[in-house]
Amino acid sequence: MKVVIVGGGAGGISTASNIRKLDKEIEITVLTRDNKVAYSPCAIPYVLSGKIESFDDIIMRTPEDYKEKDIDVITEVEVTEVDSDKKTVTYEKNGKKTVMDYDKLVLATGGNPFVPPMQGVELDGVFRIRNIDDGMRVQEAMKDAKSAIVTGAGLIGIEIAYALKQQGLDVILSEMLPQIVPRSLDKDMSDILVKYLEMEGIQVVLGKPITKLIGETKVEKACFGDEEIYDADMVIMATGVRAELDLARMAGCEIGRWAILVNDRMETSVEDVYAVGDCVESKDLILGSNTISQLGTTAVRESKTLARTICGKKSKFNPVLNSMVSKVGKLEFGAVGYTTSFAQQNRIRPVVQKVQALTRARYYPNAKPMDIKVICDGNGTIIGCQIIAEERVAERIDTMTLAITEGLTCFDLSNMEFAYAPPVSMVTDPLILAVEEVSKKFN
Amino acid sequence: MKVVIVGGGAGGISTASNIRKLDKEIEITVLTRDNKVAYSPCAIPYVLSGKIESFDDIIMRTPEDYKEKDIDVITEVEVTEVDSDKKTVTYEKNGKKTVMDYDKLVLATGGNPFVPPMQGVELDGVFRIRNIDDGMRVQEAMKDAKSAIVTGAGLIGIEIAYALKQQGLDVILSEMLPQIVPRSLDKDMSDILVKYLEMEGIQVVLGKPITKLIGETKVEKACFGDEEIYDADMVIMATGVRAELDLARMAGCEIGRWAILVNDRMETSVEDVYAVGDCVESKDLILGSNTISQLGTTAVRESKTLARTICGKKSKFNPVLNSMVSKVGKLEFGAVGYTTSFAQQNRIRPVVQKVQALTRARYYPNAKPMDIKVICDGNGTIIGCQIIAEERVAERIDTMTLAITEGLTCFDLSNMEFAYAPPVSMVTDPLILAVEEVSKKFN
Repeated sequence: MKVVIVGGGAGGISTASNIRKLDKEIEITVLTRDNKVAYSPCAIPYVLSGKIESFDDIIMRTPEDYKEKDIDVITEVEVTEVDSDKKTVTYEKNGKKTVMDYDKLVLATGGNPFVPPMQGVELDGVFRIRNIDDGMRVQEAMKDAKSAIVTGAGLIGIEIAYALKQQGLDVILSEMLPQIVPRSLDKDMSDILVKYLEMEGIQVVLGKPITKLIGETKVEKACFGDEEIYDADMVIMATGVRAELDLARMAGCEIGRWAILVNDRMETSVEDVYAVGDCVESKDLILGSNTISQLGTTAVRESKTLARTICGKKSKFNPVLNSMVSKVGKLEFGAVGYTTSFAQQNRIRPVVQKVQALTRARYYPNAKPMDIKVICDGNGTIIGCQIIAEERVAERIDTMTLAITEGLTCFDLSNMEFAYAPPVSMVTDPLILAVEEVSKKFN
Repeated sequence: MKVVIVGGGAGGISTASNIRKLDKEIEITVLTRDNKVAYSPCAIPYVLSGKIESFDDIIMRTPEDYKEKDIDVITEVEVTEVDSDKKTVTYEKNGKKTVMDYDKLVLATGGNPFVPPMQGVELDGVFRIRNIDDGMRVQEAMKDAKSAIVTGAGLIGIEIAYALKQQGLDVILSEMLPQIVPRSLDKDMSDILVKYLEMEGIQVVLGKPITKLIGETKVEKACFGDEEIYDADMVIMATGVRAELDLARMAGCEIGRWAILVNDRMETSVEDVYAVGDCVESKDLILGSNTISQLGTTAVRESKTLARTICGKKSKFNPVLNSMVSKVGKLEFGAVGYTTSFAQQNRIRPVVQKVQALTRARYYPNAKPMDIKVICDGNGTIIGCQIIAEERVAERIDTMTLAITEGLTCFDLSNMEFAYAPPVSMVTDPLILAVEEVSKKFN
């Protein structure tokens, strides 16, 4: 059997590795546009900030390493055609076209940074971050730059803004919505982050889209709304990612609102064509409707399911909650499930409580404040949680992910056992304080 | 209504506070042998180590603070009699006897350090750690001491041994069993801790009980087994805690194998007599049999249930898993549920896997090794987990506590979503690696 995988990102390359773990015989070819594979794009901002020394450090494996596993990785190719009747893909490398047969085709085409149509986006000094080469270009450009504007205050935008500030640039972080991290955080929680970013010297401009970029050949200024004009030696467009769907359309795959439709075995609507990663839709665990989960972890988890499907084993990908975490400077912030406004948009009347606790016993040195917000539906079932602190956020998000997955109410969780020692927690865990408080709203 | 609480530890004092939160009218009296209340005994080792500056820091409230909440705390009393027919308690303070009526009596008598009968235990320089005064005595004694033996390598023993080492003493930690933390860790996991303690300069002597202590008026030497004799200016007996049951017996309460029997509302077998904390037995979540859970968190959680019971509200205390965590020097270690040998003793054939992972992405600076052991029953249902690392242990234990409480299998958990960012986790969480590995044993 011959499996051809289009895309060398987390979804594609993990699918290749996972198939190989299950089966030594299957022929596996990965076709990728990039010249590098097996790196974590999530790490790009940390290289830019100087926290990680070099881009080389974040490359986990080379195409040669995959050769050793008998996985053929062909880099710097453009796949131009898919024919799902004849079961072929056509790709171009160095101007030369090759037609390749497949028994099973995996579309791991990922996403492209979405750049709103706007005057000046084609100027030099305007960047988007899709891959490691983009990261290198930004790294090069920031050496001569004094000021930067990062537009789009999702995770990547915030992380890049912080990185550039660390490198001594004057940085503006701009977001057209009235808050940062709108997908995962409520405004009051995101305000804690804004305050921190401002304390670190980043200027945060909310509620105003960039309307044009100004410059001769190189960007010099950005215009916010109608009148506000800021200088900028470089502009990073971190305005989101759109699934890349051209090949999926060519193959005849059914496309949903945002991306390729797959079932819980990662099969598309076309026989022997599968899809994985940022280019597919997932099921939302709470509502059961479709959603988009463009996270590295989701891609990696999907790749395990897909490898089992391809190898003829029992497989099932579960609905997602889009559990996330990030760290910017000292602050770790994470979230899972629905925000208050997302719940409202979906006709859930959320019952919400925010508490502040500590990461250690009150009397233990270096106890840090921890802000927690818990969101329940009208029955007390937990549907969301957001946490910000200098430490110990990620695993608490994981606990809440498990609680939501299991359908627990705030009353259930209030009774749960938590491990305690003065250096690592409060005798009543911050999560328990939060769910106890929200429980009171149901009395 | 008048509630009399005997005992001012976590169970007793929290019961008082929690009753007051629910009801402003109930008369509440707490009778305690100590001269201090509302401190965390778990913090004593960290004061001894110098990490926390003074014992004053760990006292959260004074009897006067309770007065303000209309809770009468009477310190330094010995309760000598309980008459559950007449509903009275008799206590002595400053040689004077007082008889006090109650409508409801709470026994929060806690536990006493168990000291094995042995020649020399009455010598000066031999200590046990029950309360803050014991801590102060050890603090005073260690100023002049050059060497110490801590016997009993449970949490308190290890923490105290490390504290004394931090203060520059030569320290021997001894345990009659062939491993440390036998209640919570498998031997191979506890060996990681032993190695660390030894690296920190603590001599660990396993598998040999102390048979006698030698000295004139003050301890000078300890004898291990028949022949081995070590010098010691001080000896700490950390050989466990036994529930204090005299008053419970006097009241006619049914006593189990280790402690007072209570139902899930914290009611004893005697009407209007309740019990809470280290002096009661709990239900074991996995087997449903009785167990003993002498943890501060358990006492605090029980006190919430008991307060609701006393105030006539719906209340239920759930079975326990004895989830624990501690930190000694750099190392954080935690566990929940059954060890391999405890499972075997209870006729469960455990399926066990140990993995080593990292606390951050491989390429991120300061990623620390994390050792995880997962224990399942024959069906793959998770029944135990042990984790050791320099960071981020406690919350992962909490996630596993929730997983065990919900009856999840290793296969279920393998599919779970975890939050990821390079500075705080691996793209596949260490817990997932562990449950994936143990899952393979069921193929």
